[in-house]
Amino acid sequence: MSSSEPTKYLLSEDRIPTSWYNLAADLPVPPAPVLHPGTGQPIGPADLAPLFPMEIIRQEVSTERHIPIPEEVLNVYRMWRPTPLFRARRLAAALELPPEVRLFYKYEGTSPAGSHKPNTAVAQAYYAKQEGVTRLATETGAGQWGSALAMSCALFGLELKVYMVKISYEHKPYRRALMETWGAECVPSPSSDTNAGRAIRERDPESTGSLGIAISEAVEDAATREDTKYSLGSVLNHVLMHQTVIGQEAVSQMELADAWPNVIVGCVGGGSNFAGLTFPFVKEKLGGRDVRIVAVEPAACPTLTRGVYAYDFGDTAQLTPLVKMHTLGHTFVPAGIHAGGLRYHGAAPLVSLLLDQGMIEATAVSQRPAFAAATLFARSEGILPAPEAAHAIHVAVDEALRAKEAGEGRTILFGLSGHGHFDLAAYDRYHAGQLEDYEHPQDAIDAALAGLPSVAV
Amino acid sequence: MSSSEPTKYLLSEDRIPTSWYNLAADLPVPPAPVLHPGTGQPIGPADLAPLFPMEIIRQEVSTERHIPIPEEVLNVYRMWRPTPLFRARRLAAALELPPEVRLFYKYEGTSPAGSHKPNTAVAQAYYAKQEGVTRLATETGAGQWGSALAMSCALFGLELKVYMVKISYEHKPYRRALMETWGAECVPSPSSDTNAGRAIRERDPESTGSLGIAISEAVEDAATREDTKYSLGSVLNHVLMHQTVIGQEAVSQMELADAWPNVIVGCVGGGSNFAGLTFPFVKEKLGGRDVRIVAVEPAACPTLTRGVYAYDFGDTAQLTPLVKMHTLGHTFVPAGIHAGGLRYHGAAPLVSLLLDQGMIEATAVSQRPAFAAATLFARSEGILPAPEAAHAIHVAVDEALRAKEAGEGRTILFGLSGHGHFDLAAYDRYHAGQLEDYEHPQDAIDAALAGLPSVAV
Repeated sequence: MSSSEPTKYLLSEDRIPTSWYNLAADLPVPPAPVLHPGTGQPIGPADLAPLFPMEIIRQEVSTERHIPIPEEVLNVYRMWRPTPLFRARRLAAALELPPEVRLFYKYEGTSPAGSHKPNTAVAQAYYAKQEGVTRLATETGAGQWGSALAMSCALFGLELKVYMVKISYEHKPYRRALMETWGAECVPSPSSDTNAGRAIRERDPESTGSLGIAISEAVEDAATREDTKYSLGSVLNHVLMHQTVIGQEAVSQMELADAWPNVIVGCVGGGSNFAGLTFPFVKEKLGGRDVRIVAVEPAACPTLTRGVYAYDFGDTAQLTPLVKMHTLGHTFVPAGIHAGGLRYHGAAPLVSLLLDQGMIEATAVSQRPAFAAATLFARSEGILPAPEAAHAIHVAVDEALRAKEAGEGRTILFGLSGHGHFDLAAYDRYHAGQLEDYEHPQDAIDAALAGLPSVAV
Repeated sequence: MSSSEPTKYLLSEDRIPTSWYNLAADLPVPPAPVLHPGTGQPIGPADLAPLFPMEIIRQEVSTERHIPIPEEVLNVYRMWRPTPLFRARRLAAALELPPEVRLFYKYEGTSPAGSHKPNTAVAQAYYAKQEGVTRLATETGAGQWGSALAMSCALFGLELKVYMVKISYEHKPYRRALMETWGAECVPSPSSDTNAGRAIRERDPESTGSLGIAISEAVEDAATREDTKYSLGSVLNHVLMHQTVIGQEAVSQMELADAWPNVIVGCVGGGSNFAGLTFPFVKEKLGGRDVRIVAVEPAACPTLTRGVYAYDFGDTAQLTPLVKMHTLGHTFVPAGIHAGGLRYHGAAPLVSLLLDQGMIEATAVSQRPAFAAATLFARSEGILPAPEAAHAIHVAVDEALRAKEAGEGRTILFGLSGHGHFDLAAYDRYHAGQLEDYEHPQDAIDAALAGLPSVAV
């Protein structure tokens, strides 16, 4: 390891991007319209007004290329941004890579909530506060999103209620305690606080919950209270756009490193981390620069690799608008793998569109190889990865080893979306040999896909 | 909050200090000699050779002012150093402080192990590796130190055995899982693997352990195996010296902020975090610059405020050399407060000497006010503090409020030694109103002090 080259590429505070990049301005084809769940007709801003602040709705449908980041949001970003981009020299040494195979990673775990999620949580809390909203409602699976929004609501003085998927609520009490420390109220979902929750509990008293159910509860909460708006941590256009601070910084940092990635790898649950890292590079690709972009999902929830590109609901209770996306069907319940942030039946419409257009690739990884890669990473680079990010590490390592084998040079950039400090029970099970690989059976996927709404668009 | 002034003061990677600062070169009085536990005579390097690498022994007794940091250690520091120094603008707003009362904090939680501990762990693992050692043994209480050394051993390819205080081993399984992810072996102490451990278990099968007992076990392990050295995470001179990278950076960062602290506040367990932050400022103070320096300890383990300055053993089984320090007696067992890193019967000899010389002050804080300050901090600054650091936050806030009340200007710098991601069970208990304040009864302190060894120096 030479001391002449830096370990990490840092930007000064004044290099935090001052606008979000909106891919919608540069898409080769226009995105499919969002449809009303009742009428099947394209929805307008008024339909979304009960759920979201107007500025969020405006951003959701905007085709402006750059949306300025408000000063108050930048002020919060300054608490941890710009985040570092690392050259993975120790991982490369452990893999005995030749110097022409280079690994870089962009690390979002330095935020107080430990993941990329605050990039949009802060913005959403800010706009809600601006429009006089005093309370937000949301759902969370593994807890990354709920934590990020709890922190953001604390910073802007908003109340927050988090519907946390019941199995996570029970298995991850520290995530709950973290949200409560920031002042949020957290209940296990399905709860008895909403019609959607009560209906599920009546049908299935033993339900351990799902993201789809928790979304139904949070949407109902917001739709039925004057003081409350809903906040979503992934999937939607505005969420992905807020995350582009990641990729904009990464473009600058790769320039600092005097390198351009041949391959970029990111994990996909709803798609916001992936989009945040890659969309600014997609922009470069649309402008003619060559780069492969690989989305990695868990084999247990193979939305991009085994789902269909079709209109579907975002939630189980069919309360959300219909969006065209890669989906396994809104009734799909993934296996209880230890990468809670990746257990969602759909993928962001913009990510789905890019896949459909051949702009990106997708691949699926089982959880044991993901944890093996994460353990190798921890022992060489020091940082303990979130299980979600471990999926990206596995594919990045695989790319590097194949380049080495082929005797080719390759520059690989991957997203390390967060740390795994709240996921050590999963690491413990992995070390004890208790984690199982899981491929969802085709008949279960077929059954869920049979429940897709028929849409005449 | 003005956008013209930065939120954090960052240094570039090339500003990591290239040498450790050795306070022993500048002390107004020479430190008391370390004595052999058997003979009571001053010990020499040969006495310590079974336990420590020779370079560590050399540094322990060195009076050179600056010890160069090896390039390989700097290379690891570069993974997270320099650490940020923050202006606590949001906390100040929450406290309604006037602009002339300013709060700054130096944050060490960005290291992969989440605290300041890797600053010395990396160095100790490196020197062991250099001298052909293949295995280290150590103890850990709350787990911060064990985690830091586990990471460092992974980076340098050393085996590690960690004797973890049994009550922490049982209450903090995620800390154990973290150490195991980095490849360390971790056993609850008292264990059946050492004579010291077996003796305690025979006398008291229900023993929940203590740092003093765990040290006895790790020292015995190292002393009885050819391939193994012992590694200590606090108290000793070389450990404190390795931590001075914190304070050296902080001096530069306060200069960047165009500010000089009137008061510096740090928490004290063994004293390494406190020393690391403050010794470079003590140097300035010895040179004539005015600064108050306040050490904060838990009321449940009041080593500096209610202990005596005398020769004592570092461990329960009386295996370690005798050092002159503030101590509550090596048989003292503190209450089970949730700041495990502060539960040690002694304080570093150098910190004790400074207190004796009137160069620093000491104060004790109960755990409920500490957690109240930590919760206020989390809700305003975002970061979840380690319970140890929460003690320093409480005193810093108190200093700020008193300055405000007196209508005086004051610049306060405190050490945020780590994050509290592995301490959420304690936060949970605090929010549920289940934490108790605890002052150790005087008769119990008197009883422990009666067991001090009589030394004729």
